[in-house]
Amino acid sequence: MVTLKQIAEELGISITTVSKALKEYPDVSKKTRKLVRETASMLNYKPNSFAVNLRTRESKTIGLIIPVIVHHFFSSVIKGIIEQAEKKGYLVIILQSNESYELEKKQVDLLLSKRVDGILISLANGTADFKHLNDVIENETPLVMFDKIAKMVKCSKVIIDDRKASYKATQHLIDIGCKRIAHFRGPLLPQNSIDRFLGYKKALLDNGLEYDSSLVYICECGDMSFEEGKLNAQKLLKEHKDVDGIFINTDLVAIGAMTEFMKQGVRIPEDISIVGFSNWFMASVISPSLTTINQPGLEMGINAFKLLYKEIKKKKKNSDFSFKELVLDTDLVIRESTKN
Amino acid sequence: MVTLKQIAEELGISITTVSKALKEYPDVSKKTRKLVRETASMLNYKPNSFAVNLRTRESKTIGLIIPVIVHHFFSSVIKGIIEQAEKKGYLVIILQSNESYELEKKQVDLLLSKRVDGILISLANGTADFKHLNDVIENETPLVMFDKIAKMVKCSKVIIDDRKASYKATQHLIDIGCKRIAHFRGPLLPQNSIDRFLGYKKALLDNGLEYDSSLVYICECGDMSFEEGKLNAQKLLKEHKDVDGIFINTDLVAIGAMTEFMKQGVRIPEDISIVGFSNWFMASVISPSLTTINQPGLEMGINAFKLLYKEIKKKKKNSDFSFKELVLDTDLVIRESTKN
Repeated sequence: MVTLKQIAEELGISITTVSKALKEYPDVSKKTRKLVRETASMLNYKPNSFAVNLRTRESKTIGLIIPVIVHHFFSSVIKGIIEQAEKKGYLVIILQSNESYELEKKQVDLLLSKRVDGILISLANGTADFKHLNDVIENETPLVMFDKIAKMVKCSKVIIDDRKASYKATQHLIDIGCKRIAHFRGPLLPQNSIDRFLGYKKALLDNGLEYDSSLVYICECGDMSFEEGKLNAQKLLKEHKDVDGIFINTDLVAIGAMTEFMKQGVRIPEDISIVGFSNWFMASVISPSLTTINQPGLEMGINAFKLLYKEIKKKKKNSDFSFKELVLDTDLVIRESTKN
Repeated sequence: MVTLKQIAEELGISITTVSKALKEYPDVSKKTRKLVRETASMLNYKPNSFAVNLRTRESKTIGLIIPVIVHHFFSSVIKGIIEQAEKKGYLVIILQSNESYELEKKQVDLLLSKRVDGILISLANGTADFKHLNDVIENETPLVMFDKIAKMVKCSKVIIDDRKASYKATQHLIDIGCKRIAHFRGPLLPQNSIDRFLGYKKALLDNGLEYDSSLVYICECGDMSFEEGKLNAQKLLKEHKDVDGIFINTDLVAIGAMTEFMKQGVRIPEDISIVGFSNWFMASVISPSLTTINQPGLEMGINAFKLLYKEIKKKKKNSDFSFKELVLDTDLVIRESTKN
């Protein structure tokens, strides 16, 4: 690693002069500045950015904590965040909480100790205590939550209206004539699982259909997997042969369920209509293709970074800053898994 | 942000004493050390890790550059890398080159200027010049390439044997009786596209089949997309009605091609058998499910980090270090898209 000292020795001038020359100080002659610049470039000198950081108190690095990476929605969010961050000269450290509260807590601490300029987070399913997030805020590190958020944490948020979206999904099943509509919901804790469940329930009641809690299947394993969908489909076929529509919390689970139904000879959509949630790419290429709610991952990533950036800038200037809750639009994509 | 000075003021002792106490220097009394620790904890003091970095010359951060994030294989690699890095106390900065050489070059420079402890990279399809990678090596920053590599760059690598894998894929098509076998290859440049093409060609010749260059479809758009598969399938149906088998460079393109074939009434596998490459999760849930080569993304990520870590440790101790090229096993997963 080339140092200022080496450049100074190479040119027979003082380190201070080299340092000043590289910073284009006017008390160093133009000729010397040029010489230093050229020598630095020739020796492939890289300014020590950690030293720079000490001075500016900025790391130009932000942290991102997400529950899981191998996931169409989250990888779209990541793409949006890092593209936007790069435009503004920020690097993104990515950590995966694996849906674990303990891990998420450790990762927040790690990012704070690294003095990142801000943190973006989507909560793990296991997170029910929010002290670690309040620590971020107390530490005056800008924080933006997205998708899986905690309503009671005071920071900016980017979300979709899960209740409205799932109401729309359920209304579609009702509109095409389904009478007994089940719901495969996510785990108990996350706010978006709760909201999607509430949207489903409200749509039933608003349409004069009975709400039957035995038709709601909870995700037991904590993650929302393909296997989960298969298992819930098996249970449902044993317990409720009369179900003619299902609103499923996420596409991957829906695809697992469809695989199991088809294996057991249940026809989709003739016997059961299915609506998923998220619009994974896969949903469009399977057969029958899956009707689902389109969740704008890329847009969510872009907006989450933008809000964080605004807060970083405001805090740097000690300007007033007020939190913003941005609600992105979703739409229903009708495909073959629901009756026409 | 709490500083050493504030702790010192709080306790009425010198900053030096606070600093020494936090580092557990024995020339500070046990009582004082305890008091300082407790005060630091009470005030929620975080050690300034950039200052620490200056001293140890380690950032405990590595950089990862990949062509694309929303991609089953690469997101599996990322997962492997960050899980492994976390175990060893390293953070991972992720950058996406978008298959652009220009962007990749800039990102390498950025990571070097950030003085990351090492760089992991899978090349963009557009990369044909490797000076930026040799810069990393000259800079004595550990570098490991994976999946899309440049053979002539002297560093550790984690790859699969693309030639052997595609030979296996093509041999399977021959074994089930295909006589006219086409190949949808990737773009011209990347080594793995070249190797997969060569494996395909060798399998044909070894089995006494004619190699016909008009049956090889090149990816024109530079990325390997679903649309690409559809377009190539349309062309192939116009130009070569007699084709009865296709080996396709990646699953996403294969799924695009299958969608187009089915739309046009071509039966899979009765009329055309198809083998993909990579084993995206999607390949197992579409109908017919896709026969493909299983490419171990998670394992590749884990091993790439391990090699990088070894090099970082060796370089720190100034020990000898020799590059390693690790070739991971792949296997053929036979599913419904090829005749039984």
